[in-house]
Amino acid sequence: MTTIRAATSDDAVLILTLVRELAEYEREPDAVKIGAAELTRDGFPEPGGDRYFECLIAEEEGEPAGIALFFPVYSTWRGRSLHLEDLFVRPRFRGRGVGKALLTKVASVAVDRGCAVLYWHVLDWNEPAVGFYRSLGATTLDAWRRMRLADEALAALAAQSEAFL
Amino acid sequence: MTTIRAATSDDAVLILTLVRELAEYEREPDAVKIGAAELTRDGFPEPGGDRYFECLIAEEEGEPAGIALFFPVYSTWRGRSLHLEDLFVRPRFRGRGVGKALLTKVASVAVDRGCAVLYWHVLDWNEPAVGFYRSLGATTLDAWRRMRLADEALAALAAQSEAFL
Repeated sequence: MTTIRAATSDDAVLILTLVRELAEYEREPDAVKIGAAELTRDGFPEPGGDRYFECLIAEEEGEPAGIALFFPVYSTWRGRSLHLEDLFVRPRFRGRGVGKALLTKVASVAVDRGCAVLYWHVLDWNEPAVGFYRSLGATTLDAWRRMRLADEALAALAAQSEAFL
Repeated sequence: MTTIRAATSDDAVLILTLVRELAEYEREPDAVKIGAAELTRDGFPEPGGDRYFECLIAEEEGEPAGIALFFPVYSTWRGRSLHLEDLFVRPRFRGRGVGKALLTKVASVAVDRGCAVLYWHVLDWNEPAVGFYRSLGATTLDAWRRMRLADEALAALAAQSEAFL
């Protein structure tokens, strides 16, 4: 039986462990540059602080089996929406509906908050995941490409901003 | 000379106009389902309310030439980040650096807030945009596909959530 609970600050190290396991599965084992301190600060802030994400933890017989990490986003087409940043089920707990349980709970959070859309990203080689998501009614937005500007390139562009202030 | 200013609640109708012009350019003229009331509520909330996005407006000789609309997101690889939801320059103002001015200002906001990454999406047929972004140091994340679960399909999944509570 899968149970799902909201993560607390006591879970920061567990969340980091699962985020790292997911990065390994995604063939990017060195991609995780943040630590438990950042996750604690950004997910479980002091009163009055800004919360950057929420996290659900799925357990099977008391053992952590998976996580769903999400936050609000905004669509200028549809308004308030949710973005699912990570959905991960540990390999030994797969095939029991844990992923569906987590995604279902995130969907219910979205509906409760008046969101019409839940967004996420999937790796194109991860066919089992794409098939699973499609079986639940999700669609791929094939015309869209994700872009990023990061680190030195971001700083270099930002440094030119004084000309426009 | 391009000047850039932060949008206020007085700009909600202008923002909606530019969002609709962008949707037309993106070949989705009927995609914008929200109105000025939602943009006012979600971008310029009453004190104590949640703000879902911020918006910059570029002006050329006092005329609105373009917008950049963005909000915070969270990367479990890199931590606090920004997402650029819309960057749009009206056709008659193109070729004067308005888009670069807007993106530069968003980059400076990202750096000021300790974000290492700025993310956005681009349509794959919009080669001028992709080339422009690459010239500023941005990269495409070609392995990632965007997915969404919306409306009836989202509600149908959410309705199954009681089984896990």
